[in-house]
Amino acid sequence: MKFKTVFRVLALICLVVSFAMLPSACIALYDGTRDSWAFIISILAGVLTSAVLAKFSDDKDTRSSIGIREGVGITGFSWLAASFIGALPYWISGSVPSYTDAFFETMSGFTTTGATIFTDIESLPRGILLWRSLTHWMGGMGIIVLSLAVLPFLGVSGMEMYKAEVPGVTAEKLTPRLHQTAIYLWGVYVAFTLIETVLLCFGGMSLFDAFAHSCSTIATGGFSTKNNSIAYFTSPYIQWVIIIFMFASGVNFSLYFIILQKKFQFRDFFQDFFQDEEFRSYLAVTVSAALAMSIALYLSGNFTSLEHMLRRTFFHVVSVMTTTGFIVEDYNIWPEFTKFLFVLLMFVGASGGSTGGGCKVSRFIILGRQLRSETMRLLHPKAVIRAKFNHKTIARSTLDSSAAFFVLYMIILSVSTLITTAFGIDLLTAFTGVLTCLSNVGPGLNALGPVENFAWLPAFVKWLFSFCMLAGRLELFAVFLLFVPGTYRK
Amino acid sequence: MKFKTVFRVLALICLVVSFAMLPSACIALYDGTRDSWAFIISILAGVLTSAVLAKFSDDKDTRSSIGIREGVGITGFSWLAASFIGALPYWISGSVPSYTDAFFETMSGFTTTGATIFTDIESLPRGILLWRSLTHWMGGMGIIVLSLAVLPFLGVSGMEMYKAEVPGVTAEKLTPRLHQTAIYLWGVYVAFTLIETVLLCFGGMSLFDAFAHSCSTIATGGFSTKNNSIAYFTSPYIQWVIIIFMFASGVNFSLYFIILQKKFQFRDFFQDFFQDEEFRSYLAVTVSAALAMSIALYLSGNFTSLEHMLRRTFFHVVSVMTTTGFIVEDYNIWPEFTKFLFVLLMFVGASGGSTGGGCKVSRFIILGRQLRSETMRLLHPKAVIRAKFNHKTIARSTLDSSAAFFVLYMIILSVSTLITTAFGIDLLTAFTGVLTCLSNVGPGLNALGPVENFAWLPAFVKWLFSFCMLAGRLELFAVFLLFVPGTYRK
Repeated sequence: MKFKTVFRVLALICLVVSFAMLPSACIALYDGTRDSWAFIISILAGVLTSAVLAKFSDDKDTRSSIGIREGVGITGFSWLAASFIGALPYWISGSVPSYTDAFFETMSGFTTTGATIFTDIESLPRGILLWRSLTHWMGGMGIIVLSLAVLPFLGVSGMEMYKAEVPGVTAEKLTPRLHQTAIYLWGVYVAFTLIETVLLCFGGMSLFDAFAHSCSTIATGGFSTKNNSIAYFTSPYIQWVIIIFMFASGVNFSLYFIILQKKFQFRDFFQDFFQDEEFRSYLAVTVSAALAMSIALYLSGNFTSLEHMLRRTFFHVVSVMTTTGFIVEDYNIWPEFTKFLFVLLMFVGASGGSTGGGCKVSRFIILGRQLRSETMRLLHPKAVIRAKFNHKTIARSTLDSSAAFFVLYMIILSVSTLITTAFGIDLLTAFTGVLTCLSNVGPGLNALGPVENFAWLPAFVKWLFSFCMLAGRLELFAVFLLFVPGTYRK
Repeated sequence: MKFKTVFRVLALICLVVSFAMLPSACIALYDGTRDSWAFIISILAGVLTSAVLAKFSDDKDTRSSIGIREGVGITGFSWLAASFIGALPYWISGSVPSYTDAFFETMSGFTTTGATIFTDIESLPRGILLWRSLTHWMGGMGIIVLSLAVLPFLGVSGMEMYKAEVPGVTAEKLTPRLHQTAIYLWGVYVAFTLIETVLLCFGGMSLFDAFAHSCSTIATGGFSTKNNSIAYFTSPYIQWVIIIFMFASGVNFSLYFIILQKKFQFRDFFQDFFQDEEFRSYLAVTVSAALAMSIALYLSGNFTSLEHMLRRTFFHVVSVMTTTGFIVEDYNIWPEFTKFLFVLLMFVGASGGSTGGGCKVSRFIILGRQLRSETMRLLHPKAVIRAKFNHKTIARSTLDSSAAFFVLYMIILSVSTLITTAFGIDLLTAFTGVLTCLSNVGPGLNALGPVENFAWLPAFVKWLFSFCMLAGRLELFAVFLLFVPGTYRK
């Protein structure tokens, strides 16, 4: 690994994080709250770190010298560096007592998980609240580019399928077109955020709350400015707007990209979406899970009105599946069937190339297709059977990397749960806690359920969960490779 | 599928099951208990079914006409037919009130699971008790031949590795050498049963109990003649004997076969075992899990003496990992860490080609190796990297079928758990209940824990669990293919 090249990018990341604190610093100064100094000190610390990194970095053109090792280093260390610096305001302002908690909250922000250690969110100054939402928003922005442009190039994401569709990546190197692609994708991202903010304001939210929740929604994060999350906003209009934008954020952003590149026609619009197998499956799973839950709730006597019922189930199905983690109700007390369905949805996650986490719908489609072709092969040993996805034969390497991803996911999930239970935490809490972090959802079940928080966990478990969030966010391999000595060789 | 060929084998199976009831019938007549008539009627019913099947079957030489479709049909329907007939004595004798329960108990027997619906085992007549143990014993005998000779031939087991080592199977057809191989393997099987029976008698068990428990041990079944399972026999000697024989039954029987074929030498003996990577891993997992549990129990203040501690942990680790399911203590009240470790051990299971169930140690080795080679491939995209197992390159087809097995296992586990929770059964009970059936272990956790039984489950769930036991026992694909229409084509 060429550390000088990696440092160069990290210096840039530190600078970006520092500048991103400026709005929070301004609000804090305007409000005259205790966090103003915290932000100013943090910004200075960030700029200083950036300067130090820049000092040790390489001056040459970065693009040409980024190989696989550098890509892995940049990806993994960016999120770490951002979280270490981003945690400073929480800690310095005294909003959280320990740096562990501050780091957990920041990592939860940047990975768009939304698991929080705050017990009373409404008592926090606005600067801190804005910063929480912005960590989500920046994390989501980073992941869009990462998953659609950088990871396919590294070959670690099972997302090679989209390589052809999202330009900017050629066989061996990141090209200048990446820049162009990023601009397009971020355009969609910014537009979604602004539109949702406006729509939420119409529903009676304050501009501050509307913007904060929009950032959380589009990034599929889950931080709210209210203790009761979205349950605070009882307006059905607001909840439906959030459902729609959560769902939209769980769609593969390359679909929006494709539509933007074309001359817009209403008929084509739907065709483009429905031609994509992943979108169809994503929609089908969402609708059937929500309907199944509605029936389960109805049968258990938990019924109000049809609209309310559908709103509650669609809200939570979309919230969990897109790995946002917003809450309107404590589903920890819903029937066991719905709880297990939530666990399964946490596994599945959103579409590849979205801001959502989890294993991704596309990987499940690939594994399902492979299972089908394996079965066919047993009955017809001499036939040539190829698994297909979106009418294209799935490449051998994609099949292998999807299977390897699935195995690695299970290993990290099992080992982390085992470590967590060693602290005396009950099995279901530990398992869903790890799963919710690994899939970047936010809430788990039992003692880490929707109305609980992560403050009570032992410090070691908080670091473990932070690791899980990072691993899940970077599609496992980008983090796993950081532990392989070969990554650091020249 | 040539049904006439399948019927021919099924007729034989029905006859074997009927004859296997003779010892139980004799004991029942000798004891003069209420089950004597039940056995006589069941034997007649079995012989009659056999005759009917024979009538519709083909007279020609069976071997030459067994293809993949027939192999799948024979495998799946054998276990079903055996269970339908084997359930009759329980039902007719009135030992169980419903046929559902009787079928569940028999399927649990033949699949060597050991999950029981009896609440008071000690009140059962000896004929019934003997029959329960014999279902285990026959099931184990069947699975040895199936997993080492029939399944590799069908290409569905991920066990193709052992093809070369256990003769009797050639590229396309079952050959007469299968007969020879089966005799060898069954020789080991019978010898183990007799030796354990003698050793248990030395420890003070009655001949009847010793034989019944030996049948359960060697088959890695788990049915006991006592309500408290092995906890009834407090002698450390008896418990260690059972630990050793459970462990031995979880070893790949082809290793015993190889040793039998050679001129026996003590030094070679250990070498042969330790040369096998699966055996080394199986031993390593057993020892490390038992030690980890001992430490967890010690730290939680649950400590008596060193020998007792090691005996308890080794007993349960070996019992769960070999998927036997014998109990000396209620580990449902042990620390959460040990409970989750038991869940993981249920997944892993014993070695391939043993009487044990689960995913098998060899499959985990294969998946682990694939993960490693995938990681290496990311760092060295142009290098040719091959995953190896026992110094041989793992075939592409083995990698694919192992991955497909893993995926299918997860699908059956998830869907079955979801259905079970729909009956209002709590998540942990449902999940571990399905897992314990799918891995053919016996006890789960919570309301299906070691000191509980399966009697309280709704009838539908009992049929579902019976299906899971069968699917797990026949390495999933042999059962999965029964649901694929293509299997029934000519």
